[in-house]
Amino acid sequence: MDLASNLANAPLPADFIEGARTLFGARLHLGEAVREAHGRSEAHFATLLPDAVVFAHSTEEVAALVKLCQRSGVPVVAFGAGTSIEGNTTPVRGGVSLDLSEMTAILEVNAEDFDCTVQAGVRREQLNEHLRDRGLFFPIDPGANATLGGMSATRASGTNAVRYGTMREAVLSLRVVTADGRDIRTARRARKSAAGYDLTRMFVGSEGTLGIITEITLRLHPIPETISAAVCGFETLAGAVDTVVQATQLGVPLARVEILDDAQIRAVNRYSNLSYPELTTLFFEFHGTERYVAEQVETVSELAAANGGGDFQWATRPEDRSKLWKARHEAYYAALQLRPGCVGWPTDVCVPMSRLAQCIGETKQDLLDAGIVAPILGHVGDGNFHVIFVIDPNSPEEQAQAEQLNRRLVKRALSMDGTCTGEHGIGIGKQDWLVEELGEAVELMRTLKRAFDPNDILNPGKIFSRG
Amino acid sequence: MDLASNLANAPLPADFIEGARTLFGARLHLGEAVREAHGRSEAHFATLLPDAVVFAHSTEEVAALVKLCQRSGVPVVAFGAGTSIEGNTTPVRGGVSLDLSEMTAILEVNAEDFDCTVQAGVRREQLNEHLRDRGLFFPIDPGANATLGGMSATRASGTNAVRYGTMREAVLSLRVVTADGRDIRTARRARKSAAGYDLTRMFVGSEGTLGIITEITLRLHPIPETISAAVCGFETLAGAVDTVVQATQLGVPLARVEILDDAQIRAVNRYSNLSYPELTTLFFEFHGTERYVAEQVETVSELAAANGGGDFQWATRPEDRSKLWKARHEAYYAALQLRPGCVGWPTDVCVPMSRLAQCIGETKQDLLDAGIVAPILGHVGDGNFHVIFVIDPNSPEEQAQAEQLNRRLVKRALSMDGTCTGEHGIGIGKQDWLVEELGEAVELMRTLKRAFDPNDILNPGKIFSRG
Repeated sequence: MDLASNLANAPLPADFIEGARTLFGARLHLGEAVREAHGRSEAHFATLLPDAVVFAHSTEEVAALVKLCQRSGVPVVAFGAGTSIEGNTTPVRGGVSLDLSEMTAILEVNAEDFDCTVQAGVRREQLNEHLRDRGLFFPIDPGANATLGGMSATRASGTNAVRYGTMREAVLSLRVVTADGRDIRTARRARKSAAGYDLTRMFVGSEGTLGIITEITLRLHPIPETISAAVCGFETLAGAVDTVVQATQLGVPLARVEILDDAQIRAVNRYSNLSYPELTTLFFEFHGTERYVAEQVETVSELAAANGGGDFQWATRPEDRSKLWKARHEAYYAALQLRPGCVGWPTDVCVPMSRLAQCIGETKQDLLDAGIVAPILGHVGDGNFHVIFVIDPNSPEEQAQAEQLNRRLVKRALSMDGTCTGEHGIGIGKQDWLVEELGEAVELMRTLKRAFDPNDILNPGKIFSRG
Repeated sequence: MDLASNLANAPLPADFIEGARTLFGARLHLGEAVREAHGRSEAHFATLLPDAVVFAHSTEEVAALVKLCQRSGVPVVAFGAGTSIEGNTTPVRGGVSLDLSEMTAILEVNAEDFDCTVQAGVRREQLNEHLRDRGLFFPIDPGANATLGGMSATRASGTNAVRYGTMREAVLSLRVVTADGRDIRTARRARKSAAGYDLTRMFVGSEGTLGIITEITLRLHPIPETISAAVCGFETLAGAVDTVVQATQLGVPLARVEILDDAQIRAVNRYSNLSYPELTTLFFEFHGTERYVAEQVETVSELAAANGGGDFQWATRPEDRSKLWKARHEAYYAALQLRPGCVGWPTDVCVPMSRLAQCIGETKQDLLDAGIVAPILGHVGDGNFHVIFVIDPNSPEEQAQAEQLNRRLVKRALSMDGTCTGEHGIGIGKQDWLVEELGEAVELMRTLKRAFDPNDILNPGKIFSRG
């Protein structure tokens, strides 16, 4: 898409600025530093500055701002932790970046109901610290310490999704401000409902284009009695994937199962001062009672051995588990350190399990043939994996090469009845692929967008290419 | 709502009938017997005849019919097994009942991916018979042998939802014919995706008002190594509910846990020739490996004993389990047999678990005070329960009494932050309650309906009151 059109934004109308200043006072920012921080992307996208930034503290403030934007035709882009990676919060048509990161109240925890309600700016680590003493946890873990508003808006998932689902399953209800400034709640707090259209799921994954999520009611889970984690290297990629498929067939409820290729292991070893064998490797986590975890481990160890896996390196003590998962979570930064000064272009696809080994295998060969630095890692139990292209931001050739490899990767996933993104979203990076993936169905999405945001003020230019 | 307006339907235009005959030949029915079978409800709603019935055999035929209906402004109501119970398929504005029950092809089963694709008319029992030899099963079980199209359209759930989720979680992708006759697919076959709006969930639970579901891709599960079921009576309602809450807190993955009150047990004993003690009773099912099921059983037995539960009556052999669940599934017919010649008015609500004992307790007292025959049963692990009013169809007094009791039940559930229907849907029976439950959010649903079906031909008059 043509991002240069951003340069042609009309400046904000004076009465809009006056109205925003009345509402937000010193929480309205027009200076370049704050705007720059809201125009940057974690990934390779160009920085594009919003015309203004406001920090909201309540749903009422959000509604008032959206009404103001609606009156003046000013775009409004909801912003949380800024950790999305398909340019999802880049203000491609300028306007206001609406920062919700100071809405950090945990409004209620209903332990007996296994749910809680939080403001959109609460981050997942804050929530889990708050829950720990109640014996509960919130499982969705995309790696980054994202806000729960952002995670809802992008339908985030991550390492625990194989057992606990994604934000699609985790969100019970949302409080949302609509494009005309109405303040609605999508559902009650019951665990299930057949009452009308599923507005909750309509807003989850809509990337701020249909409404602004201000409060989220989430499903929680009891902290398991026993948690055990292990790392195991495999002779072949197929051996690693087959181990996971067979474990699933046997009903083993793997809580986490992550795949890292040899390049990613090399990066992790160097970055986190570890010494895993440089092989295709699985990181496992098992949850349950002590006896049941022992049984799961026994089953999976036997399967791994039969599929060319090496010894399991165990991490049962909390501090060892933390170290293991910290290494996994820092995989992105570890990859970037393979070429200091370079930037990351992380992409992801998701395919049916039966095609995963082939999809990763062909992708790996393509990357090797290209001679590019691009580790692979993924959530193997879901058929979802990432490639992190590590490229020189000043080299148009490397950009073009990554783009070509990404194109072939997505085409490969689609040819296997997979999706162009398992968890990153469409943002500005995958708009053409969405059409390739779903065809005519994208027209229904446009119909929905026009109905809910007729003046196109909510995060315009995202998910769909313009025009 | 005013059902009498049905009488004022315009007759079908001659060119419409001619077009439908060209498309469907002998599968177009205008005779009263077939129309009557498509205007009847399983529950207490008045029978209202469609003007015609067609039996479709392909998505292409469905699309052609919808285009024809669109041209002539003829309502079209998708029809499966006719087992819904809020009047969801009653053709309140006449038109065509589009029967999909002959679309019974199981199009593919991908065992390694734990998914399958079926036509809308496949019934859940047919699917499970087909899957058995592959070691797989489809868990959603609303009791009735419903079609998978109907189950998707009403967001059905049932006894296994506590462990395996509802149709919301079970559907991976849909093939849908839109109001203008387009044939779209909502998603690829990947287990998760962040590619644009969640059209799949938008159609699941939309009761045929946004599009006609013709094919469904479903998530499957491996058949557990060990399945064990048991029945246990409790001294008190609170003791039964506390047992379930505590088991959940301990992480026991109950596969099924059903509650039946003493009135329902009495009905079941009489209908199925059983002799359970006439107490508030839980029906359990445990899934897992042999050792893990034994551990779950040990934990739950201890909890039950501590909460005033009696001995567990076990059913471990398949034939004993079948007998137990057959008795549970026939609870509705058993209830009707308490008063031969009467009809059932089944209603359902769903509340947060912490309020369930109070909600059932107050409801039971209300029913006792009224002196009405109305057994209670429910999916206690989800906070979802049913009341079956058994009433004389010729007594306006009994109808009015059931209506009042239902009104108080739903108000009670809403006051506890619950929903007016956990799994039956809105249909024509709960339209006022939907507004009471979600307020302004219902306006968003209307916006969605207008955008997707501007001429209101798809199952008009459902979910929303008219006007």
